[in-house]
Amino acid sequence: MSRQNLSSTLLSSAVDELAALPGVGRKSALRFALHLLKQPKENVDRFGKAIIRLREDIKYCSVCNMISDVPVCPVCSDKTRERDLICVVESIRDVLSIENTGEYNGLYHVLGGIISPMDGISPSDIAIESLIKRVDGSDVKEVFLALNTTMEGETTSFYIYKKLKGFPVKISTIARGVGFGDELEYTDEVTLGKSISNRQLFIPSNL
Amino acid sequence: MSRQNLSSTLLSSAVDELAALPGVGRKSALRFALHLLKQPKENVDRFGKAIIRLREDIKYCSVCNMISDVPVCPVCSDKTRERDLICVVESIRDVLSIENTGEYNGLYHVLGGIISPMDGISPSDIAIESLIKRVDGSDVKEVFLALNTTMEGETTSFYIYKKLKGFPVKISTIARGVGFGDELEYTDEVTLGKSISNRQLFIPSNL
Repeated sequence: MSRQNLSSTLLSSAVDELAALPGVGRKSALRFALHLLKQPKENVDRFGKAIIRLREDIKYCSVCNMISDVPVCPVCSDKTRERDLICVVESIRDVLSIENTGEYNGLYHVLGGIISPMDGISPSDIAIESLIKRVDGSDVKEVFLALNTTMEGETTSFYIYKKLKGFPVKISTIARGVGFGDELEYTDEVTLGKSISNRQLFIPSNL
Repeated sequence: MSRQNLSSTLLSSAVDELAALPGVGRKSALRFALHLLKQPKENVDRFGKAIIRLREDIKYCSVCNMISDVPVCPVCSDKTRERDLICVVESIRDVLSIENTGEYNGLYHVLGGIISPMDGISPSDIAIESLIKRVDGSDVKEVFLALNTTMEGETTSFYIYKKLKGFPVKISTIARGVGFGDELEYTDEVTLGKSISNRQLFIPSNL
């Protein structure tokens, strides 16, 4: 659908902006725009302002770099969490995913990226130095590296591992294995191999 | 994903607004919000303002009700189009779809809805009166009803047909039949039946 066909520059601009969202094509963007046109003015105004304010006023936790409305985020200031355990993740979204599991009760450290020479991202571009400072001279007992198993993720994990080797902290990583519901037949051989060499004690459950 | 988990009211508000777009769930809305957070401030500002301006400043053609930046839209003021043919559609999106086919060179009339007693939409709630006025005493030779084949669409077509019966205009509707690429086996019987009773002369093509 070309720009000219939309018969209005206002509509074209809105569709252009909406189509820049990840995974949104021009057809969906047009659907969004026509939907917004049918809404009351106040709602659309609130929509636009929420987006603008999000980007303008967003703050990040001074300790862990997570999105936060206050200088130190609720997780970092929560005294009931395990304060000697730090989970290192690439992005804000990873924190949200891990929080949703309900299985983790420690603190976080958001790197804000991953070492990727191909994309020109070096260790100094991400929050590794501040992680070392958090560990240095503190009571932190364990640094839990929860990065993706891509080459960049492995590189970053290894870099942090080397940086932390001199400190008296345990360095752990997430368990790899066959996913729940996955079939052995269709599991790639590296995963299946690792899940055999790292096999765990069988614990019967009543589920 | 609950609101509390997002750790920021700014992020929560933006996700709530984005999740109200048609077909967008909270997961996609969060993806959109985190994407916007990574963009330069100016871009996000432009995004929000484009949406707000779309709703605030949008104008409609005074003749056909199509979205337009000028009082009379480019189609209605185009002297090269067939000015004695009016295509009646339910919505703006239908105009865009028909324009995209490149098969139509007449004018339009956007009803802005469809007669639907269930939803409390009566003939006076949609632009039927202005259609009659456009036809009355004019040179219009044909009114082409391009409404959906739902019960509401058929009702609206029939209502307009009755209203226009007294005028010297031809009233046509879009051809129904088996779609290109559709298989006869899976075509519903009403469509297949109509496509047999309305069968057309076979014209060999070199496609």
